[in-house]
Amino acid sequence: MESQLSLFYGLSFLTAALAFAFAVYLYLWVKKRRIENKKILEVSALIKEGANTFMRREYKILAIFAGVAAVVIFVLLPSPVWKGDIVQNISMTVAYILGTALSAVAGKIGILVATLSNGRAAEGAQKGIKPAFLIGFRGGAVMGLLVVGCSLLGVAAVLLIAGDATILLGFSFGASSLALFAKAGGGIFTKTADVSADLTGKVELGIPEDDPRNPAVIADNVGDNVGDVAGMGADLFDSNVAAMASALVIAQSLTGGFANISMVFCYAILGLLASIIGIATARVGKHGNPTRALNSSTYVTTAVYLVLTALATVIFEGFSWRIWGASAIGLLVGVIIGITTDYFTDDSKPIVRKVAHASGSGPAFTVLSGVSYGFISALPAMVGIAVSALVAYKLCEPMGAGYAIFGISMAAVGMLSIVGMIISNDAYGPIVDNARGLAEMGGLGEETIRTADELDSAGNTVKAVTKGFSISAAGLTVISLLGAFMSEANAALAAAGKPLITGFDIMSPTVFFGILVGAVIPAVFSAMLILGVDKNAQRMVSEIHRQFNTIKGLREGTAKPEYGKCIDIATSGALRELIPAGLMTIIATLVVGFIGGPMAIGGFLLGNIVSGLLLALFMSNSGGLWDNSKKYVEAGNEGGKGSEAHKAAVIGDTVGDPFKDTAGPSINTQITVVSLVSSLVSSLFVAFSLFG
Amino acid sequence: MESQLSLFYGLSFLTAALAFAFAVYLYLWVKKRRIENKKILEVSALIKEGANTFMRREYKILAIFAGVAAVVIFVLLPSPVWKGDIVQNISMTVAYILGTALSAVAGKIGILVATLSNGRAAEGAQKGIKPAFLIGFRGGAVMGLLVVGCSLLGVAAVLLIAGDATILLGFSFGASSLALFAKAGGGIFTKTADVSADLTGKVELGIPEDDPRNPAVIADNVGDNVGDVAGMGADLFDSNVAAMASALVIAQSLTGGFANISMVFCYAILGLLASIIGIATARVGKHGNPTRALNSSTYVTTAVYLVLTALATVIFEGFSWRIWGASAIGLLVGVIIGITTDYFTDDSKPIVRKVAHASGSGPAFTVLSGVSYGFISALPAMVGIAVSALVAYKLCEPMGAGYAIFGISMAAVGMLSIVGMIISNDAYGPIVDNARGLAEMGGLGEETIRTADELDSAGNTVKAVTKGFSISAAGLTVISLLGAFMSEANAALAAAGKPLITGFDIMSPTVFFGILVGAVIPAVFSAMLILGVDKNAQRMVSEIHRQFNTIKGLREGTAKPEYGKCIDIATSGALRELIPAGLMTIIATLVVGFIGGPMAIGGFLLGNIVSGLLLALFMSNSGGLWDNSKKYVEAGNEGGKGSEAHKAAVIGDTVGDPFKDTAGPSINTQITVVSLVSSLVSSLFVAFSLFG
Repeated sequence: MESQLSLFYGLSFLTAALAFAFAVYLYLWVKKRRIENKKILEVSALIKEGANTFMRREYKILAIFAGVAAVVIFVLLPSPVWKGDIVQNISMTVAYILGTALSAVAGKIGILVATLSNGRAAEGAQKGIKPAFLIGFRGGAVMGLLVVGCSLLGVAAVLLIAGDATILLGFSFGASSLALFAKAGGGIFTKTADVSADLTGKVELGIPEDDPRNPAVIADNVGDNVGDVAGMGADLFDSNVAAMASALVIAQSLTGGFANISMVFCYAILGLLASIIGIATARVGKHGNPTRALNSSTYVTTAVYLVLTALATVIFEGFSWRIWGASAIGLLVGVIIGITTDYFTDDSKPIVRKVAHASGSGPAFTVLSGVSYGFISALPAMVGIAVSALVAYKLCEPMGAGYAIFGISMAAVGMLSIVGMIISNDAYGPIVDNARGLAEMGGLGEETIRTADELDSAGNTVKAVTKGFSISAAGLTVISLLGAFMSEANAALAAAGKPLITGFDIMSPTVFFGILVGAVIPAVFSAMLILGVDKNAQRMVSEIHRQFNTIKGLREGTAKPEYGKCIDIATSGALRELIPAGLMTIIATLVVGFIGGPMAIGGFLLGNIVSGLLLALFMSNSGGLWDNSKKYVEAGNEGGKGSEAHKAAVIGDTVGDPFKDTAGPSINTQITVVSLVSSLVSSLFVAFSLFG
Repeated sequence: MESQLSLFYGLSFLTAALAFAFAVYLYLWVKKRRIENKKILEVSALIKEGANTFMRREYKILAIFAGVAAVVIFVLLPSPVWKGDIVQNISMTVAYILGTALSAVAGKIGILVATLSNGRAAEGAQKGIKPAFLIGFRGGAVMGLLVVGCSLLGVAAVLLIAGDATILLGFSFGASSLALFAKAGGGIFTKTADVSADLTGKVELGIPEDDPRNPAVIADNVGDNVGDVAGMGADLFDSNVAAMASALVIAQSLTGGFANISMVFCYAILGLLASIIGIATARVGKHGNPTRALNSSTYVTTAVYLVLTALATVIFEGFSWRIWGASAIGLLVGVIIGITTDYFTDDSKPIVRKVAHASGSGPAFTVLSGVSYGFISALPAMVGIAVSALVAYKLCEPMGAGYAIFGISMAAVGMLSIVGMIISNDAYGPIVDNARGLAEMGGLGEETIRTADELDSAGNTVKAVTKGFSISAAGLTVISLLGAFMSEANAALAAAGKPLITGFDIMSPTVFFGILVGAVIPAVFSAMLILGVDKNAQRMVSEIHRQFNTIKGLREGTAKPEYGKCIDIATSGALRELIPAGLMTIIATLVVGFIGGPMAIGGFLLGNIVSGLLLALFMSNSGGLWDNSKKYVEAGNEGGKGSEAHKAAVIGDTVGDPFKDTAGPSINTQITVVSLVSSLVSSLFVAFSLFG
């Protein structure tokens, strides 16, 4: 069995290398497209520079944070350095730093390619949907391949070198602490710019979206990249690593562990291969529908994955059909959640139209109906996650003690197996969104803008779907992280000679205490992020007013605005606002742990997962719903542009912006961070707590 | 010990009788005030008639529902009639019917007095704050005394006659099924009328609130009564009964049960006495502040209660200081929650002003900041409930097995002990709100309207506080209902010869499945109610448009509108919309129970409680916050009436209306109903379930 495992280590490195090679090929393919238009060249350089500025400053702050965290980890984890094995502490620290570094690299390169692709996609749109789609999609795929390649490479390398899956928690924590900042920081940045640009441009001055006279327009385009490309990439890198790490921590504790560890790697490898095939075959017909193209590649990936993993189960010794079933159920439920999310957010379906219709009675009804359908939209995903966890558990339970939870973690691995494809679809969105802006600013004409619009609308729909998918995957992952937490806490309890935890009973008052406190954290976290956008947008709006009042000729288009100032405000504000929110969650975890001990933390994680999932689904879906309702009205329905319904729909969209792009998708990272902090610090909670 | 218990039975009846006598005295006192103004007489007769129409039709539907439920209960509960003891089934059925009947009677009489008091309070306002305050408060107090008297009387009578606390669950279910309909139905009614009246009157026609030309104006005033008086009364009757019932079910299962049963009754009796004292001493100075008067009576009640229960602990054999402590902590946390709620919703505090300020940037910011602060406002209450449950548990744990949960149930009883006072404060609100409308319609002049406005504003602030209080009390109650569910399920398991439940472990997949599904139910339930208001308001708006278009002279005030038509629409729509929402929750409970058995239901209840508390607090508080922000702007701040900030604040208020008066406060009833259904049906879940 050990030789089998060595084979899979080898294959992991090989597949990661293949993914990188394919990414390089796609990068060169995109780079070969030429940009002729001077204006586009100029603006896309500005966007690139702005994105780099943000990333540089963000990474500088993160480096400080990571440095402090690395010291704390070295001193305290997995056990206080003066008590335990110093080699373990060094491994944990190095793994942590590697986790942050790989996430940062993937994000950085993703941004690089995205800002390379946007202008090329704009020019491509002059020749039609087909070439523009390919540029957008392949640019996004570079990010997708990198993220999955890095996670596979990193997990395999850390486990191979450290020889202990617990160290993976450090790696995963590195990925997830970076993701928290990247997602939340990028989310605040992008919505600050978006909201300010809309408020001053569309509402006050009546100039079109993406008009180059608007000082916030470059910041808005930069935001798409730092929020949706880098942020989303970091988020899914985090989920993917966490899913693998928790599966491996549990696999390690099982009897017959080697075959199980092999299975985790094998499934991850096959998921990456399936994604490569899906990406390679993605194409749109000459007059084809880009949404359909994106969806059908996802289905291809899913089918290929299921077939390959079934084959692997036949071929390899010690592989189990039960585990295959668990992983398949996870993936299928993920796809179903994607489809139901689409039902609530696609403008060809009834819900978006109902909200658009309600807008005719005024903005209060836009908000009320969007909130209501957003709440209802959480139902299929919550039930889906519940059912997949239940089925995976029951399926794997007969395999022996501990296998049931392993089944759930493999359902999460299954759901995340197609993540390479998912990220490609997702990163496609901001690229074509930027392309639309560049087409407008470059004056490429009505026809091209229409083509870009069509590509953009497909990006929006697919984005809602991938968000539902990634939230659900995070949900399943953290369930298995709960299992990982329990095994970590038990290791610490055993070392301290205390009785082990066999479960977290709701009727225990410390568990219950943890649950109630844990449940309110995602709400407070979301509120802090939304208020952060709010405050930051107010700063930027004042700056825009200042520019219009003091720069002569700006209104007439004869003078240029100072784009950099707006980028500066978005950058520093985003970083200033996200730190309290991030710290709040970590401090709350520590307070609960030191009050109630590991039992309270078990409850805390549960409460956090449950309300976090509910709020994340609600906010992402209602945000997508409002966005597309606005687009539906703008397409000439319910009175079209300029009508009362349109005004109301714009207000709904503005409410939805920080819901869907700041708070909603940051919650899953928040959940993962809290879970990992708990696992890492479990030995401290065992040693010191008030009621524990 | 049995003789001690007999004493408390006797005292329970005596105190209930005292409460009724005091209620009659207050009723006669209010009735003696005269109404001189013809117009007020006429309109208040219309309001009374409208309220009676609604109540009659609602009770007719409820009678059908209760009849069906009674048959089901008779056949199946506490155990299938063909298996168990038929006398038990008859007792359960009778207890259920008694629960619905007492709740209905209390609601009906409350409405009667409220509609009697509104006109008198309006005329009283001509003579100043002092007399008007007393009329409003004493009218509300009749309802408060009746509700608490009925619950004490009912619980004591049922337990005395049936001799088994399990039968009390039937009584409690009667109260809570009625409350679900009364609160949700009344909530839909009142907001349908309120929103439609505002939209057509204030927004479209620019006529003032409560203008008699508006066909919806009477329906709006009726709504205050049926939603806030009858609905809130039924809700708190339900919580109070549920708290006592679950404490008694647990007390019965304890060794040394008699003294514990005595304690439950003793505490309830002393709470009612303390409320009577608080009500009798409530007074406002000539130029005094009505908010302060309401609050200080609450503090008087709290202090009296704590002293009396301490004395009882000294005097009576078998009473325990630990239990006293648990009950005191419940009450104190309740008061603290009230104070923090006040911080988030009072317009003399910073949060309301911040939201008002944000409105200056447009309605999207009103909504976003309100949502954010609403989320944050849930923190103190959730932590407060968590802490009080933890402390009560730890305090009572040393008393022996089962006492810890009993401690939590006594914390709930403690929190609800001052409910008589709370309801009086709460019912005061709609009475003075109506009085303001009547003063306007009766042309009583600027000065009187200003006085009525001041009384109304106090009502709004206090209403937010009592809502936070009642939600938290429901939270603590359902925790003890979870304990009650476990003892019921164990009784059934023991009878079936199956292993007993010792707790609900989060790591069990059936429990986890239940948690996720349970957590999404309050969200879907709220959404259905909000959409119900939405649909119903659209119907009423069309009717109002029809009247303005077809009735000649209506616009000029020379012809009368057809008020009855609007009342009809509100009534039939409310009843039509609430039934699916109510059924959905009951069906979801049954589906989860028959899939996952008692373990899944344990999880389901937990998920339901946790997300229900979070959403209820969020919606009630954000709604109150928006309402008072609007009032703050209307008082001349941020540009005052007619400014952009005002328009935005009005939109926020409209969003908040169904949040705070329909969905938010209905959620606690929904939670109680689900808990009681689970306890009642537990034996069926034990007998048949897929994975259980």
